[in-house]
Amino acid sequence: MEQKGRIYVVGLGPGNREYMSMRAIRAIEDAEVVIGYKTYIDLIRDLLAGKEVIDSGMRKEVERCHLTLDKALEGKKVALVSSGDAGVYGMAGIMLEIKDERDEDIDIEIVPGITAASAASAVLGAPMMHDFAVISLSDLLTDWELIKKRLTCAAMGDFVVALYNPKSMGRVHQIEEAREIMMKYKGKDTPVGIVKNAKRQGEEVIITDLEHMLDYAIDMLTVVVIGNAHTYVKNGKMITPRGYQR
Amino acid sequence: MEQKGRIYVVGLGPGNREYMSMRAIRAIEDAEVVIGYKTYIDLIRDLLAGKEVIDSGMRKEVERCHLTLDKALEGKKVALVSSGDAGVYGMAGIMLEIKDERDEDIDIEIVPGITAASAASAVLGAPMMHDFAVISLSDLLTDWELIKKRLTCAAMGDFVVALYNPKSMGRVHQIEEAREIMMKYKGKDTPVGIVKNAKRQGEEVIITDLEHMLDYAIDMLTVVVIGNAHTYVKNGKMITPRGYQR
Ligand SMILES: C[S@@+](CC[C@H](N)C(=O)[O-])C[C@H]1O[C@@H](n2cnc3c(N)ncnc32)[C@H](O)[C@@H]1O
Ligand SMILES: C[S@@+](CC[C@H](N)C(=O)[O-])C[C@H]1O[C@@H](n2cnc3c(N)ncnc32)[C@H](O)[C@@H]1O
Repeated sequence: MEQKGRIYVVGLGPGNREYMSMRAIRAIEDAEVVIGYKTYIDLIRDLLAGKEVIDSGMRKEVERCHLTLDKALEGKKVALVSSGDAGVYGMAGIMLEIKDERDEDIDIEIVPGITAASAASAVLGAPMMHDFAVISLSDLLTDWELIKKRLTCAAMGDFVVALYNPKSMGRVHQIEEAREIMMKYKGKDTPVGIVKNAKRQGEEVIITDLEHMLDYAIDMLTVVVIGNAHTYVKNGKMITPRGYQR
Repeated sequence: MEQKGRIYVVGLGPGNREYMSMRAIRAIEDAEVVIGYKTYIDLIRDLLAGKEVIDSGMRKEVERCHLTLDKALEGKKVALVSSGDAGVYGMAGIMLEIKDERDEDIDIEIVPGITAASAASAVLGAPMMHDFAVISLSDLLTDWELIKKRLTCAAMGDFVVALYNPKSMGRVHQIEEAREIMMKYKGKDTPVGIVKNAKRQGEEVIITDLEHMLDYAIDMLTVVVIGNAHTYVKNGKMITPRGYQR
């Protein structure tokens, strides 16, 4: 009897092994083939003995998903790995899309993970205790006009805002414009947390405010968390009260 | 020498043990006292042998935090447990607030977890692949007017929307009003996922649309995920494309 292939799309969490779930570890252990962007493969290198490992560069997401499906159709168990939560700007969506496009019948399990905003919040204190919006500033795949509209709506609604992909080498003005939009609706002393490499090697944390946030280094390994009207900073922690104290 | 107490505020993830992080398990193992709402204590009962365990009813959040701090000041290591991510409508914020209010100097580590929206998304497919807003419909601690404003802004910005605390026995009209607000900006055929007990015992999944969502049971163990203008349903999965396919 032929073995039936299957696909796991696995969220590895922020990076340090101890923030991975047992389900993620078991999915990788069960897999015969593990596919992912090199940085993520490196995080789990010790789990990969005896497996076929395919690491690939950035921006080859579509290709990676086709390959994952090809391998699964050969009857293999394949783990496609993603950082954070596989379902938040991760590989879950594109994998399902490609499966549907090719109209193949194969089991796909999405294994959720701790997303960067949660990891960054834990480092900062408790900034996301009230309603929040998660917005990616990458305009590679999304119109900048739509992103600006979302920034405006999130600011108008006084959401706590977590910015993913805030800045890369070739993409620097977005974070400046995002800040300007926030300043239209939020006070300039609104607390801002900048967390690089949250809960993984190289962690760096800054707590500042909207006025001064651009004085600090922000890059593509960073999440920026902007408070709401009630967010405050005390004893080095950024806290958004939920309201229990009223 | 006196032992120095410390506090862990631990996110247990959606419920099943395999979605907890190792860090969360280790924090509980390290603790001498474990405090939490009874349902969550039950999830980790087997880790609690030999520990002082204090379970308490709902809505005693403030009391639980005072108790946690009292125990830590006695020199104990205390784990305060929360479902999902401790930093998303969990215990992280109120614990930090009470520590500051009482002006005590004690180490507090926030251990992040997989939040309900991520767990529900994994069950539904990949609905949160693009910018999303997380909104609690509980107006116990927040003005209903502010919640309505946030719902309006999130709908105007075409965010994917995850609704926490959508409905309880004594609170039923909020989800109806939330749907009405969504219908003003989103098409009535916008996909809606209703997930009860995501990634824990008793999991139930419904995929429907804005027009029909109220035909299904929604309660306080449920997260409701409402798509954006591009979200679609195929082969029983709810998918929000990120744009790779363009
Ligand atoms: C393509 S997105 C992937 C997000 C991932 N799937 C998640 O759920 O965290 C990449 C962006 O996530 C953020 N990010 C991911 N991991 C992070 C970490 N450990 N610390 C800070 N930011 C992180 C950064 O903003 C980065 O530009
Ligand atoms: C007080 S909030 C706690 C949220 C939690 N800290 C988190 O990050 O998931 C309680 C609400 O979370 C949602 N929730 C928590 N766990 C869930 C699960 N496993 N499945 C569905 N909804 C869940 C429900 O909407 C519930 O009313």
